[in-house]
Amino acid sequence: MIPIVSIVGKSDSGKTTLLEKIVKELRKRGRRVATIKHDAHSFEIDHEGKDSWRHKKAGANITIISSPSKMAMVLDTDHDHTLSELRDEFIRKVDLIITEGYKREGHPKIEVFRRELKRELLCEEDDNLVAIAGDPANPPDGVPVFDLNRPEPLCDFIEARFIKSAKQGLGE
Amino acid sequence: MIPIVSIVGKSDSGKTTLLEKIVKELRKRGRRVATIKHDAHSFEIDHEGKDSWRHKKAGANITIISSPSKMAMVLDTDHDHTLSELRDEFIRKVDLIITEGYKREGHPKIEVFRRELKRELLCEEDDNLVAIAGDPANPPDGVPVFDLNRPEPLCDFIEARFIKSAKQGLGE
Repeated sequence: MIPIVSIVGKSDSGKTTLLEKIVKELRKRGRRVATIKHDAHSFEIDHEGKDSWRHKKAGANITIISSPSKMAMVLDTDHDHTLSELRDEFIRKVDLIITEGYKREGHPKIEVFRRELKRELLCEEDDNLVAIAGDPANPPDGVPVFDLNRPEPLCDFIEARFIKSAKQGLGE
Repeated sequence: MIPIVSIVGKSDSGKTTLLEKIVKELRKRGRRVATIKHDAHSFEIDHEGKDSWRHKKAGANITIISSPSKMAMVLDTDHDHTLSELRDEFIRKVDLIITEGYKREGHPKIEVFRRELKRELLCEEDDNLVAIAGDPANPPDGVPVFDLNRPEPLCDFIEARFIKSAKQGLGE
């Protein structure tokens, strides 16, 4: 079963930026990574006027664009998928799934926290909070805190805790 | 097994326009349809700067955006998928798959042909040519010809020939 870790935090706390850093670092380490972003609304993807855009617009329930190196699929759904559903139905051949958001689901969470925003931890009381990236004044007992700007130690933690068959040691 | 029909034809013959008409008509009839478009190059999808775009750009092998009504997935692949692979790996719960292009594969084909372009049929010699949409001067024996601008009779043909459990009769 592919492990899932969620990057959570208030709006504009820097979730996407941290996720980018983690993905880049894990890919550098030879890991294969899937990411999931929730969108509450009917997002737009693809470019107006392109053939694939016209297919979907005409009413196709599923539209796929396939090339030798990349594939994209847009499909209608009849409900908001849980992370486990997305994993089981759509995701193959990766070592880890990182989500942006999904704080209400029961998967392990890393909270992005910046004191300058003067806010309390979102997941203070959440048993699934496994780490904090940022500078909390009073982190909960037993929850490690990592530097927002240095993804390496956080990725060591993620590899050790979530990716079983680590291909390399965890450094100093 | 979900049936596959390919709309083929020279560039600019009107493949996308015909596909749109067929999809609209089949959806009107209550059919669920998937479409597939091949892209020889590394196509662009998603909008620069969006979170999901940033995820993929950072190196994610798979990126998903999920909403209550729509889902999109972009993924790296290590080879050019055949239509059967795309069907078996990614497509569920539709009555028919319509592809734009894929003339080299061995699935049933409908060729778009317009005499004003003064070109010969692409699939004259192809045993998988099941119909022509347009105005060929000398269509091959046994291959029915349909009006490019009237999708209804062509959709009657597609339903009768490819969609097993037709929900309705085939018209007059």
